[in-house]
Amino acid sequence: MNQFIDLIQNHRSIRHFEDRRLTDEQIKAIVESAQSAATSSFVQAYTIIGVKDKEKKKKLAECSGNQHVENNGHLLVFCADLHRHELIAEMEKVDIYPALETTETFMVAIIDAALAAQNAALAAEALGLGICYIGGLRNNLEEVSKVLNIPKFVIPLFGMTIGYPLNQSSQKPRLPFEHIYHEDEYQSDAAVLKKQLEDYNKTIQQYYMERTNGKRDDTWTSQMAVKFKVPTRTYMKDFVEKQGFNKK
Amino acid sequence: MNQFIDLIQNHRSIRHFEDRRLTDEQIKAIVESAQSAATSSFVQAYTIIGVKDKEKKKKLAECSGNQHVENNGHLLVFCADLHRHELIAEMEKVDIYPALETTETFMVAIIDAALAAQNAALAAEALGLGICYIGGLRNNLEEVSKVLNIPKFVIPLFGMTIGYPLNQSSQKPRLPFEHIYHEDEYQSDAAVLKKQLEDYNKTIQQYYMERTNGKRDDTWTSQMAVKFKVPTRTYMKDFVEKQGFNKK
Repeated sequence: MNQFIDLIQNHRSIRHFEDRRLTDEQIKAIVESAQSAATSSFVQAYTIIGVKDKEKKKKLAECSGNQHVENNGHLLVFCADLHRHELIAEMEKVDIYPALETTETFMVAIIDAALAAQNAALAAEALGLGICYIGGLRNNLEEVSKVLNIPKFVIPLFGMTIGYPLNQSSQKPRLPFEHIYHEDEYQSDAAVLKKQLEDYNKTIQQYYMERTNGKRDDTWTSQMAVKFKVPTRTYMKDFVEKQGFNKK
Repeated sequence: MNQFIDLIQNHRSIRHFEDRRLTDEQIKAIVESAQSAATSSFVQAYTIIGVKDKEKKKKLAECSGNQHVENNGHLLVFCADLHRHELIAEMEKVDIYPALETTETFMVAIIDAALAAQNAALAAEALGLGICYIGGLRNNLEEVSKVLNIPKFVIPLFGMTIGYPLNQSSQKPRLPFEHIYHEDEYQSDAAVLKKQLEDYNKTIQQYYMERTNGKRDDTWTSQMAVKFKVPTRTYMKDFVEKQGFNKK
């Protein structure tokens, strides 16, 4: 339809990169693209840490269980940031802690950071680079916070590896359009939704079988059942509260 | 540097639209672009509601205090969605509630929805349309949930108005690159950060004075102080918990 829409819809996670660093010019274009995203009430409640230090990258790779966190063109860590607003409170001599600690403000900061990150991802892909989001940093945010010297009122949310792709991975088929997109209100007919999921399971099975020459045939719903069978990262509530977020 | 990066960095919020609806083809391109974003562990924990019904749009406009929520080419509402995964639990006969109710899963669903939304925003802008995020829906999610028939395990996060722009609004200058982007670790030197904020305040003052012929001269930090002086949307913690999220 449109070459930019083709670019957006061509996204796939890249996990193997050439041993070739991004230039400062590329990093600036990516970060300034991140900054161009919308931000709730102009609060700009996020910070982006760019990690070049080899030792730090190695520790973050261990935390996340992702080898490409160490070997890539660049590593970004996107953080929800209200520390900036703490400083503002000092400068303006107001008490804003009651507002900073709400669940609403927690959501605002996460959304701000995520919108910025998605712009960064697309900017990198527009430059011919590949990217991969790294939720695995949340396996151990205490450790990540030590490595990155994170102060209170900041939460590292996820990483992003960026680099020159060594290969083109494949794209996993998404849920059917009509399952994700509802007209005028949430379509709650469970029978209809389950039928759509059963059809999607066939699509996903087909995808895996083709990709693995018949060796793998999971469905999407079976994967989700495995994923959610046991709660993970159960330290998170306490961690974010300790950082000053999501208390009231 | 690159026409896609120019498009990304050209974003501004558009709040006045022609009385001209999006076509189904445009809507599909936008939603399929949303779906192309990364999703944590492939959970696809979001749903997009497209609102055409005039009465519903009117009610949502009243909720949010934004007239263009009623008058636009199309209105999308992005929802964090774990209801889908509830259905999966029934289909796969597993108990996943302990995993659904964690703060970690709450964060995952918000991030998934936000990444999808930012792709939708850029796809719309690539089609020559304008957009505006509508956080104002969170003024009253009880009311929004009635209007949109929202079930448990779903949270409407924000809206997005899309349409043919009636005018080109201006772009507000973002925080300085070096304030948002930190090398190797969080740069905690308060004196340095405050100096950057003071310089940015001058940039913002200049922006407002030029835009209003000298009538307005707020700084960014004074705006933030006003915004955060009183907590808003303090019902949110209870609301999300009532919906099944963020309990442990």
